[in-house]
Amino acid sequence: MAGVHDLARNETGIATAIEVLRQRFGARLETGQALREQHAHTTTWLRNQPPDAVICPTSTEEVQAILGICTEYRVPVIPFGAGSSLEGHVNAPAGGISLDFKEMNAILAVHAEDMDCVIQPGVTRKALNTHLRATGLFFPVDPGADASLGGMAATGASGTNAVRYGTMKDNVLSLKAVLPSGEVVTTAQRARKTSAGYDLTRLMVGSEGTLGVITELTLRLQGIPEAVSAATCSFPDVGAACAAVIATIQYGIPVARIELLDALQVRAVNAYSKLTLPETPLLLLEFHGSEAGVAEQARAFGEIAQEMGGHGFTFTTREEDRNRLWQARHDAYWAGLQLRPGARGLSTDVCVPVSRLADCVSAAQDRLAAMGMLAPIVGHVGDGNFHCLLLVDTEDAAEVAQAEEFIGWLNELAISMDGTCTGEHGIGQGKAGYLERELGQGAMGMMQAIKRAVDPLNILNPGKMGLG
Amino acid sequence: MAGVHDLARNETGIATAIEVLRQRFGARLETGQALREQHAHTTTWLRNQPPDAVICPTSTEEVQAILGICTEYRVPVIPFGAGSSLEGHVNAPAGGISLDFKEMNAILAVHAEDMDCVIQPGVTRKALNTHLRATGLFFPVDPGADASLGGMAATGASGTNAVRYGTMKDNVLSLKAVLPSGEVVTTAQRARKTSAGYDLTRLMVGSEGTLGVITELTLRLQGIPEAVSAATCSFPDVGAACAAVIATIQYGIPVARIELLDALQVRAVNAYSKLTLPETPLLLLEFHGSEAGVAEQARAFGEIAQEMGGHGFTFTTREEDRNRLWQARHDAYWAGLQLRPGARGLSTDVCVPVSRLADCVSAAQDRLAAMGMLAPIVGHVGDGNFHCLLLVDTEDAAEVAQAEEFIGWLNELAISMDGTCTGEHGIGQGKAGYLERELGQGAMGMMQAIKRAVDPLNILNPGKMGLG
Repeated sequence: MAGVHDLARNETGIATAIEVLRQRFGARLETGQALREQHAHTTTWLRNQPPDAVICPTSTEEVQAILGICTEYRVPVIPFGAGSSLEGHVNAPAGGISLDFKEMNAILAVHAEDMDCVIQPGVTRKALNTHLRATGLFFPVDPGADASLGGMAATGASGTNAVRYGTMKDNVLSLKAVLPSGEVVTTAQRARKTSAGYDLTRLMVGSEGTLGVITELTLRLQGIPEAVSAATCSFPDVGAACAAVIATIQYGIPVARIELLDALQVRAVNAYSKLTLPETPLLLLEFHGSEAGVAEQARAFGEIAQEMGGHGFTFTTREEDRNRLWQARHDAYWAGLQLRPGARGLSTDVCVPVSRLADCVSAAQDRLAAMGMLAPIVGHVGDGNFHCLLLVDTEDAAEVAQAEEFIGWLNELAISMDGTCTGEHGIGQGKAGYLERELGQGAMGMMQAIKRAVDPLNILNPGKMGLG
Repeated sequence: MAGVHDLARNETGIATAIEVLRQRFGARLETGQALREQHAHTTTWLRNQPPDAVICPTSTEEVQAILGICTEYRVPVIPFGAGSSLEGHVNAPAGGISLDFKEMNAILAVHAEDMDCVIQPGVTRKALNTHLRATGLFFPVDPGADASLGGMAATGASGTNAVRYGTMKDNVLSLKAVLPSGEVVTTAQRARKTSAGYDLTRLMVGSEGTLGVITELTLRLQGIPEAVSAATCSFPDVGAACAAVIATIQYGIPVARIELLDALQVRAVNAYSKLTLPETPLLLLEFHGSEAGVAEQARAFGEIAQEMGGHGFTFTTREEDRNRLWQARHDAYWAGLQLRPGARGLSTDVCVPVSRLADCVSAAQDRLAAMGMLAPIVGHVGDGNFHCLLLVDTEDAAEVAQAEEFIGWLNELAISMDGTCTGEHGIGQGKAGYLERELGQGAMGMMQAIKRAVDPLNILNPGKMGLG
């Protein structure tokens, strides 16, 4: 399967490192098969490649010690958060040690006046926001899954409200990471702005555990808005919906979320969430601001939507109605799976300039129809990012081949439109074949030079991002 | 002077490279002393260290050719934009070739629907916004000077409206750069969001010409707001003004600009711009949005300001009044210099968490008073960044020593408050001594490893950022 092959294993090094680690960590070094498989890739059809052992470190010092040993014996180290990544990021194609951060889940500081917090990487998105509620602040990045924030940083995650609040790349102020040498790097101070040296924070965010192991994060926070409203509007076709998105953003309406569901996805959501939305392309929006502000934003969007041929515009500030709508959006994945019970879902992740979005989505729909494949589509359309959820019987080799053909075709199409094969899921193993096609030899060579300079023995999450 | 010393010159290499370059570029290779000095540092008291020759390339291919020759003969290359950098970034401490990008000033594409544009690095901020006016879009980063966008990217510039629109790090979508090998790197596609590989865009932005020579930029644009309003409010002391800033941002008021002028700076501005502002700490704000929106924002700020002891709150949407106020802010530097005719101005650039801003500004004022130094203060206080403009007779060695002592003391103070020695001016030569103290050996070692991997011969802007 694309990118998922085994790499040469350093058997003696792995055996020795496990012995040495057991002397230090005793029973905390776990090697049971079931546990090891849970710490490899489990979320899609990509093959599960378990590590040889799992340790849950409790401090930066323990991570330093483990990396010291793994460097000495040249053994791979694979950081593990919640295991919700989608491109095989946590697989161990050359074996090695999985570092599970679930015990490093402390919220170390909340600086309300500075609107930031300092946390350990095992804290999950929902746990952080629950902790913050009393402060009137929240962390905005929302990929759907209750991922660990360390994992979200490593993959450069984003989600439904990146259009307003940005991605992990915009919301990590600073981080601490351990290098293979065991050296600890602090990438920045806590000031909101800096021009002090290379931007190591942004280099680490999205590096998928291949440059360092994140042991602490300083995150920007946002004020919980005084008022939140939701709106929906149906459109005759994807082109009209995308035209409304473009106009909304050009007019500077600060939408917090603007999501597209295609007709098939709306049908799936209606069935799964007992809704009665018109089964045509739908835009689902959320507005954050003052009472007056959100009403004005929604009104302005309503006018744009009507110009673009939208119909059935609805607007609500009632929390239960909002939650029902957004719960339906969050359940889109499960709703999609119900279109074909027993099938596995595989999500594409292309992102294109917004002006090309309608062309890209429509071409994908036509191709899916021509191939006879079932794949509801949801999109973070304010960013030009959308997902086709391919529903595949992974026991059927022909279907698998067909799905891979489609994914490759769509990635190439997005690249040809000046877009990317991954807006938010990352490269991992699944997309390793597309990174050079997207960015060219120059960028690939520079990434490889950086990887070799920081991790000369290639022990940090090897076999990912096509960086060897 | 701190950081400004000569480095070993490769005399034979420089002589040979100049001969070879002259064969290709003829009279376009210029070596006149006056021109060379204009292409070295001229904006502060840092010593002028001219390059050996200046070339104005007209294409990426020419930059590749020049870098190929300079790599072959191990000759430094120093990229030059408008020469408005403040930390000796364009000095040539080891000699070498200055690449002046004034002829690479084409706007290659404006994608209005995608709200981005593709430009050559010699385009200045004002030239771009003049070109964009008809499209209803603008580029928001405003460092005051009419800098080149290539230079702004290289130094990670920002300015008065970063609090709303971010810095260069947030507004460069992608760039093209030539590496010492002559290889061209394209860091990203044009999509607004990507998780494809290491974030080379953000690594290059702020790298001060030490990793590659930027030859093309793709920039995010913003919609020109429907309405703009300005407000001013005076405060009894800096602490009250900072408390108002913190509350304003916590309440989520999307201020476009929020600037602090201390009492001395207000006095300077009154004298220079014929204004009658109360000579106490002043906040100067700008709001962007709809007619209703900017009025609501200003009203909300007015209430906060009053709570915090502000007085004389004024609010205007009249363009001429706004321009008068903001012109005064933009002239703050010249106004400050008039406090001591004949003196040179040297600007500090510390940035601290906003909760520490009042302490940091007050401590700076006390220290300046104790040292008997004249230094008006302006601050981009929404970001925690402020500048003391030290007015110094650079002929007086004692004054120079005193100023350097203050700058070092303030940098250390900011670092001790979890802040940075540079919010937006960069490290260059002037702050090279503070980078390691701020970020530690781990980060410094990682930056050096990256520098060596990308520029093994150290020909790209040597002697900057303390990277050898």
